[in-house]
Amino acid sequence: MKIPQVKGTRDFYPPQMAVRNWIIDGWKRVSRRNGFEEYDGPILEHLQMYQVKSGDEIVEQLFSLQDRGGRELAIRPEITPTLARMVNQQINSLPRPIKWFSVPRLCRAERPQKGRLREFFQWNIDIIGEDSVRADADIIFTTVDYLRDVGLTADDIVMKLSSRRMLAAALMKIGVPPDRLDSLYAVLDKKNKLPGETFEKMLDEFLADPAIVSKVRAFMELESIRQIEDMFGRHEAVDELAELMSLLESMEIGDYCRFDPGIVRGLAYYTGIVFEVYDKASEFRAICGGGRYDNLLKDFGGPAISATGMGMGDCVLEILLREKGLLDAGKMKSGLEYFIACVSDIAAFQDNRTPLSIAVELAAKIRRVNKSVDVSYKLGGLGKQLKEAAARNAKKCIIIGEEFNQKQLVIKDMATGEQQTVGYNAFLAGLGGKSGF
Amino acid sequence: MKIPQVKGTRDFYPPQMAVRNWIIDGWKRVSRRNGFEEYDGPILEHLQMYQVKSGDEIVEQLFSLQDRGGRELAIRPEITPTLARMVNQQINSLPRPIKWFSVPRLCRAERPQKGRLREFFQWNIDIIGEDSVRADADIIFTTVDYLRDVGLTADDIVMKLSSRRMLAAALMKIGVPPDRLDSLYAVLDKKNKLPGETFEKMLDEFLADPAIVSKVRAFMELESIRQIEDMFGRHEAVDELAELMSLLESMEIGDYCRFDPGIVRGLAYYTGIVFEVYDKASEFRAICGGGRYDNLLKDFGGPAISATGMGMGDCVLEILLREKGLLDAGKMKSGLEYFIACVSDIAAFQDNRTPLSIAVELAAKIRRVNKSVDVSYKLGGLGKQLKEAAARNAKKCIIIGEEFNQKQLVIKDMATGEQQTVGYNAFLAGLGGKSGF
Repeated sequence: MKIPQVKGTRDFYPPQMAVRNWIIDGWKRVSRRNGFEEYDGPILEHLQMYQVKSGDEIVEQLFSLQDRGGRELAIRPEITPTLARMVNQQINSLPRPIKWFSVPRLCRAERPQKGRLREFFQWNIDIIGEDSVRADADIIFTTVDYLRDVGLTADDIVMKLSSRRMLAAALMKIGVPPDRLDSLYAVLDKKNKLPGETFEKMLDEFLADPAIVSKVRAFMELESIRQIEDMFGRHEAVDELAELMSLLESMEIGDYCRFDPGIVRGLAYYTGIVFEVYDKASEFRAICGGGRYDNLLKDFGGPAISATGMGMGDCVLEILLREKGLLDAGKMKSGLEYFIACVSDIAAFQDNRTPLSIAVELAAKIRRVNKSVDVSYKLGGLGKQLKEAAARNAKKCIIIGEEFNQKQLVIKDMATGEQQTVGYNAFLAGLGGKSGF
Repeated sequence: MKIPQVKGTRDFYPPQMAVRNWIIDGWKRVSRRNGFEEYDGPILEHLQMYQVKSGDEIVEQLFSLQDRGGRELAIRPEITPTLARMVNQQINSLPRPIKWFSVPRLCRAERPQKGRLREFFQWNIDIIGEDSVRADADIIFTTVDYLRDVGLTADDIVMKLSSRRMLAAALMKIGVPPDRLDSLYAVLDKKNKLPGETFEKMLDEFLADPAIVSKVRAFMELESIRQIEDMFGRHEAVDELAELMSLLESMEIGDYCRFDPGIVRGLAYYTGIVFEVYDKASEFRAICGGGRYDNLLKDFGGPAISATGMGMGDCVLEILLREKGLLDAGKMKSGLEYFIACVSDIAAFQDNRTPLSIAVELAAKIRRVNKSVDVSYKLGGLGKQLKEAAARNAKKCIIIGEEFNQKQLVIKDMATGEQQTVGYNAFLAGLGGKSGF
């Protein structure tokens, strides 16, 4: 019987797995060099976890289930609630600031479409227990550090920044009542995600009062932090944004970063600096986003400890990298260091051993020093074995032939076709070091 | 509100994550050097997948759920059905033999106990499309190659081998009716897993006929392949076992391997060579197992293509490695290459820049050449920052102090305490290469 794969999920055959590994290895490498330590939680959590603070969209898209004890569980759609739970559990013993990263596998019952799947991987970096904007700068730097590392330039992408605190202060000065702020955020969040006209219409309808509309519209057109000051005067939250920009300049990623009052983030839990990275060529595509969420630990029963973080999924990123020609098949190609071929019409050598027994012994010795090697299962003609070596992307082919009666191997360089004869023991002795064989 | 973690799952804080990564990185490294390529499937499959061929125990332990379209899904409890599905889907385009590995996250609703959890990781290696016993030898070698690599010697563990084909031939010669073979396998499988008396009692009850019981008992006491021949004469399946042993000797792992007629494997789907690895100190603990399963692809709607493979979970392995003292905390400890400390009572250098802006710029440059570095968020006294550098396991601490007015850095070796003064540009120039800083 043939059973299909589940809708919206991916099978990772070796070529697709190589791409996934290349992306995830990059996330891990850049996290570590920026001083983050890796953590992970279970893929199953109690359903309640996601009813506390996750956005409505996420709650609607949960894969939920009951265990045999009747407990309501869910496959994690995001890892931040798990992070909050884990940190709260050990809050008294964990040294702060906590600077952690994770690459969870997540599931959401979304309608599958380009860049949105029901199962995906997401890079998460978070700093918990540090109020200063330097923590936000580290999150933003680490994000750009990765994107630059995989080849995306400031011509390809832009890191758009703003501040929820500044936004709240500005909107209240304009005359928006405090109790309408949260729902206005949801509207403003659409500025970078919808065509201009659609957004303007939403804004008009939401605000109704034309005087306020024109002020909000003018605010949303601001392009620099100085312009905010010109419009509203000095404010702590504006100074903080300016300090952030100055830190990002010192970190030499100023060319990637731009203030944009349209960066709001949909979720209610953000409290300070917020940001999203966009593909410049595709107006509406956010590659990742994040910001400060100072109340989350408290919402999960812990103390009031500040936090800031970022999440980046693999699906949109992979599409972008592919479009930009940055998923080079050559980089991904795995290959063997050695392939061993036997001259198969030799029944046995003078020492009565068969070419095959020599080959498997040699392969075992090579693997033991952590070099990759394989031997053909079909000991046909030498030509066929050399073809198999090429198909397996072997760098060198070791040929066990008549020369073995003199305890010698023939080593063929698969790229140049050059061959050299080497003593068996000399070959083995050279394996550990940097011998040319 | 405080929400607990789900029963039988693990939180991986950085120290636990380091152990998990160390185990999984080893699985991947040894798979690759043995010529296996990595694949993975989705964590969700259609529930039916596990109703085809998985054992009853696995089916009872499924975490199942319905998606919004009413489809019955399950979280994967093993990856072999996914492997069969994926291979069948591309059977005409995949070059054979297929030599693949995977490290899936799996869930089973088991009663949590030592070495058995509801969520775990499992190393899987499989060779599909190769009939010869050389493929079985490669699976067995790769398994031992890993266990030896992490420090387990032939005094710690034993690879017990047998053959379902040989077993079937022997039991029929003894007089067991063919239609009772499958249920007898389930009994014999308990030989290495139950106290001797319990096993003997089960065997007596199952076979009933004392003549047959005594012959089966004599067979189960055999310790070498030659003894099988002495008892039953030559048989193709016995020759195959002998050839396997000879290959394993050539591969220099003969000391780990032993014929054991009690190795049967519980699942019905095994058809040829079968094996399990045991901890010698704990009589009943299987670390991993596997064997040949030549009908599985066909059972999933594909062609009759032979296959052989192995699965090893992380829970029992981790317990064993810990008992043997092979989970060395030092090996696992992550640490920074550099930590940057600022002499914080310097407000600004002669060039008007602050120590902090120098520090974050330097950190960005160091990260760009893929070295890990961090800067304290609390620029207190130098002593406090050096303590933080030590707590973060930094190898070197870079001190930005008065010397920076002469564009110089002080580099402190955290292990020896030695300090040297180095020009800023010379330090940067040395970063790419192997300079001593």
